[in-house]
Amino acid sequence: MSASFSDCANAIRALSMDAVEAANSGHPGMPMGMADVATVLFQRYVKFDPADPKWPDRDRFVLSAGHGSMLIYSLLNLTGYARPTMEDIRNFRQIGSPCAGHPENFELAGVEATTGPLGQGLAMAVGMAMAERHLNATFGDDLVDHRTWVIAGDGCLMEGINHEAIGLAGHLKLDRLIVLWDDNKITIDGSVSLSSSEDIPARYAATGWHVVECDGHDEFDIVSAIEEAISDDRPSLIRCRTIIGKGAPNKQGTSKVHGAALGKDEVAAVRATLGWNHAPFEIPADIREAWLAAGTRGAKPHAEWRDRLAAHPDRLGWERRGDVPQELLKPYIEQLLANPQKVATRKASEMALEAINTLLPETIGGSADLTGSNNTLTKGLVALTAGSYAGRYVYYGIREFGMAAAMNGMALHGGVIPYGGTFLVFSDYARGAIRLSALQRARVVYVMTHDSIGLGEDGPTHQPIEHLMSLRLIPNLDVYRPCDTVETAECWELALQKEDGPALLALSRQNLPQLRTEAAENRSARGAYALFEAEAPRKVVLIATGSEVEIAVAVRDALEAQGIGADVVSMPCFERFEAQDAAYKRDILPHDALKVSIEAGATFGWERYTGNDGLNFGVDEFGASGPYLRLYKHYGLSADAIVARVVAKLNGEQA
Amino acid sequence: MSASFSDCANAIRALSMDAVEAANSGHPGMPMGMADVATVLFQRYVKFDPADPKWPDRDRFVLSAGHGSMLIYSLLNLTGYARPTMEDIRNFRQIGSPCAGHPENFELAGVEATTGPLGQGLAMAVGMAMAERHLNATFGDDLVDHRTWVIAGDGCLMEGINHEAIGLAGHLKLDRLIVLWDDNKITIDGSVSLSSSEDIPARYAATGWHVVECDGHDEFDIVSAIEEAISDDRPSLIRCRTIIGKGAPNKQGTSKVHGAALGKDEVAAVRATLGWNHAPFEIPADIREAWLAAGTRGAKPHAEWRDRLAAHPDRLGWERRGDVPQELLKPYIEQLLANPQKVATRKASEMALEAINTLLPETIGGSADLTGSNNTLTKGLVALTAGSYAGRYVYYGIREFGMAAAMNGMALHGGVIPYGGTFLVFSDYARGAIRLSALQRARVVYVMTHDSIGLGEDGPTHQPIEHLMSLRLIPNLDVYRPCDTVETAECWELALQKEDGPALLALSRQNLPQLRTEAAENRSARGAYALFEAEAPRKVVLIATGSEVEIAVAVRDALEAQGIGADVVSMPCFERFEAQDAAYKRDILPHDALKVSIEAGATFGWERYTGNDGLNFGVDEFGASGPYLRLYKHYGLSADAIVARVVAKLNGEQA
Repeated sequence: MSASFSDCANAIRALSMDAVEAANSGHPGMPMGMADVATVLFQRYVKFDPADPKWPDRDRFVLSAGHGSMLIYSLLNLTGYARPTMEDIRNFRQIGSPCAGHPENFELAGVEATTGPLGQGLAMAVGMAMAERHLNATFGDDLVDHRTWVIAGDGCLMEGINHEAIGLAGHLKLDRLIVLWDDNKITIDGSVSLSSSEDIPARYAATGWHVVECDGHDEFDIVSAIEEAISDDRPSLIRCRTIIGKGAPNKQGTSKVHGAALGKDEVAAVRATLGWNHAPFEIPADIREAWLAAGTRGAKPHAEWRDRLAAHPDRLGWERRGDVPQELLKPYIEQLLANPQKVATRKASEMALEAINTLLPETIGGSADLTGSNNTLTKGLVALTAGSYAGRYVYYGIREFGMAAAMNGMALHGGVIPYGGTFLVFSDYARGAIRLSALQRARVVYVMTHDSIGLGEDGPTHQPIEHLMSLRLIPNLDVYRPCDTVETAECWELALQKEDGPALLALSRQNLPQLRTEAAENRSARGAYALFEAEAPRKVVLIATGSEVEIAVAVRDALEAQGIGADVVSMPCFERFEAQDAAYKRDILPHDALKVSIEAGATFGWERYTGNDGLNFGVDEFGASGPYLRLYKHYGLSADAIVARVVAKLNGEQA
Repeated sequence: MSASFSDCANAIRALSMDAVEAANSGHPGMPMGMADVATVLFQRYVKFDPADPKWPDRDRFVLSAGHGSMLIYSLLNLTGYARPTMEDIRNFRQIGSPCAGHPENFELAGVEATTGPLGQGLAMAVGMAMAERHLNATFGDDLVDHRTWVIAGDGCLMEGINHEAIGLAGHLKLDRLIVLWDDNKITIDGSVSLSSSEDIPARYAATGWHVVECDGHDEFDIVSAIEEAISDDRPSLIRCRTIIGKGAPNKQGTSKVHGAALGKDEVAAVRATLGWNHAPFEIPADIREAWLAAGTRGAKPHAEWRDRLAAHPDRLGWERRGDVPQELLKPYIEQLLANPQKVATRKASEMALEAINTLLPETIGGSADLTGSNNTLTKGLVALTAGSYAGRYVYYGIREFGMAAAMNGMALHGGVIPYGGTFLVFSDYARGAIRLSALQRARVVYVMTHDSIGLGEDGPTHQPIEHLMSLRLIPNLDVYRPCDTVETAECWELALQKEDGPALLALSRQNLPQLRTEAAENRSARGAYALFEAEAPRKVVLIATGSEVEIAVAVRDALEAQGIGADVVSMPCFERFEAQDAAYKRDILPHDALKVSIEAGATFGWERYTGNDGLNFGVDEFGASGPYLRLYKHYGLSADAIVARVVAKLNGEQA
């Protein structure tokens, strides 16, 4: 006798409840409430092949309500993915198990995105759906023809990023995106009605979405809603009316079942209620078989896809996507050396991008409504729009967080390399997604211009102070602050080559001289290097980044004129410098010199490189509104002021 | 002959255009486009008294589209505020002028909020409207009966925070909140239609708002829309159809007029078009008189209000609001010393709040849907709801950014002291508003729990790593990480006493022993202090914060047992320690000891206190999912592991 639909859904409920119970930690309510919806979805609709979880034309499934992680762990195990094994699930939430508290793409091949920070899963799915339509427009239905599915909870819909994400999806008419909303009317604090009175379907409709409802515990109603969603030419929200923790007779429908183990008694009561007479982590053979059949559905379409790929006229173009040559920009950099230019690094970035976007057809640029300021649009790029998905430039609108999350989704989808711009100060708005780029090891390039008080008159609300340092603190995010056209090109090259993580370019509004006169190797790759070496006996090492390297050079000239030898170290990337060996670091930052940092931002943290006896020049308060050269002077960031303090320090030490 | 409505509106246009022209920098489009709406608003509706800009019962006006700062500078000057003077306006965007690029509440008394970071002005206005209704419910119509007005642009409405803010306002039925939307169909990148297809009125209606439209250049239509908004019992969005840069014959209606000076020719063309034959910064007497009449409207209601205050039964209660006694929590701390308790600092915070909320009726607590985790709800606090504004607890929903911005608005409104909670890792979501708390000098207390890998099984998405350090980098934000019940109370006391800025409490999920045994003074006020002093000759100073102070004590015990003297320095607040004199700092962190930092977060930055020869124990990668004690061991944060490395270091140095 073959397993029934209920048996299959109850397998998810049992695994979820038992894993949470074993860990004495976790969230049983969502997986139990959405078990029926997920069963319909994975048994009938989602296109995937557990034998090759990275099949490029698979459907993408994102569990935006990431706390319900046992839902996806159950599904991956039941449908036949190699991992998680049942042993992995038994070790849910333990060190070493890939079944972490929240789903992590770097732990399990079947997890498309790392979720848990609410709202971002859905917003990443928007990016995945954009990548799908773009690649479809580029390579055709034969190679790219899949859907993006999302399970989202009330939290995902209440977060601000939801507005940005669905606004973008509605505007771009991403009809391959289908969101299943777990409408259980419960949040952690209690009823949703404690904090919200919103008519969610009306809001989605106002934003260009199709909305359909279903009873989330009725197999046929779920099917009918999904069919309607598939047939509509807008992105779809399916409102699944569910009972959180369904199956737990005493706790279901309340916030008690959301985020804690059910407890021994209630677990027993669930078994009785569901008629689930199996030991924890035991799945009867007929139920396992029914689930495995769902998993093998994908083998045939996958084989057919492979045949189509083999015959595709642009197979090589498809396969090389994402491969960035080692010396991608060497010819361009040689042109720069031949014709030095004094431009803002934001302009230098645009110039580098002109080369990059010609060489790499997989880049997709954009800006959160600051195209002309971020210099992110290069000649020949056309807009990616609802009518024309082949375009490679996205007008993200005033949606920094949504842009960053969409870029994460594109990078995770693969086949494209996204970059996008805003002002550095507004990295704050996108910070949750920048962190997830780093955690998820997603190749996203952030183009952050107006990177200091050097932006001038817009004043404190627009002047980043703490941002450079606070972004450097994020693990696995490479923060670049190049000083001229050559370094900007080098940093772009390094950013694109980092396949397993994001990079952020901090770029000036103001013009800067081209300081580099040779480029035999990519010197920025070391993170820091001696741009100029002392001529007189070295007493000082001036360490600077970006726009302040020019000041360091002026300081050096003045010191050398007084017979004081000084190196100028340009330090475009702390993270890369940290990765160098001790000998290199010591060579660049020797013990026996006064080390002086110059950066128009917070000085806190520079002690790592200057020691406690060094000098740190920067800005440790909110800036001010005024022409930028006056601001630099106001904050003591002028060669004269710095020279005076360096000389005084040297004299003081020698006295 | 008295000045016409058009004359008055054109005065705004001329001042705005001429100031931007003089600075050769700024945003003329918005002030010129919204001049008519603003004229109606300030001449007829906004209740204010330029003679006393801080009159508590004044209406609040927030220019959410802060780039249009010349609009508010013009209004304040024309209606008779002492500042800005015309000289201030001539120096628009210059160092020293209060007329900064974007409006700053700390520069001009008539500016209620610092705006420019889009979306936040409107979200702060929601908080102001909440404070108004709460104080009205507490003190009655006699003392509190005013409106909150907002001018917002497309950017403010597209940002994610708009969804959170209007969701909260609609849910709370804040009928005194009226938003005038400058619907000019233009963003920086061009037409709004480049990036959005949203039906904004429908979205607002779906969220519980009343929506009305008007021709934003028709005086009577504007009046009629405002009258309708006032009479509705929901918050209102007034869609003002406008032409950006109206009056500039060649540039109006395009993005060219948004963010740059018009240029000499177009300025001349505006003068011709408007018939404005006056020199820059000259306002004819009749127009000045008409505007001053608008400014003196408030004198009479203000005087009547003063009379009502004088006669009010709770005048003293009204006037003391915001005064926090020096030793507010001394009796409570004495109880703690008498009965030491091992609890999580999030629980210690709840215990302190029990005392605080009894002593200070002006606190308004809340949480972004983590009430039971943040421990922000104390006994006796009832919810602030649409039906019951006297409540003192806000269920903010899953809206971290919206909560933070609303708290900024409440603090800026005055009369209340807001505090609100989420997980520390989600400070990222609210970071834009946390920064604005600091910039605006707003007394907001952030209650951030689950402050390290110590939260355990929820894993990397929920474990803050870089957050402590990156928050410490924000100027004027005091970040507290107390180690036990006593320090938690001390830090709360200090946070509440800081009238001119925000504080953030980072609190543990896990239980911690009570380490403090005396509290003659508030020792946390120094930022760092020797909790235990060495008994053997001092060779080591262990510096720790929060939950790691317990580990430092264990390390000290083990070192002392080996005859190695070690101080334990608890450092609950870097910012306060930085404010101490050099002698105190040197006493706490002496040159002649090995300095060792222990904090379960990023080590970058600790070099300021340990020097380059010290040891830094922390977590410099994303965490992992598992029981917290195992995680601490995994990351080398155990007394055994630390002792071994300290001893090796001491031996190495002596060798």
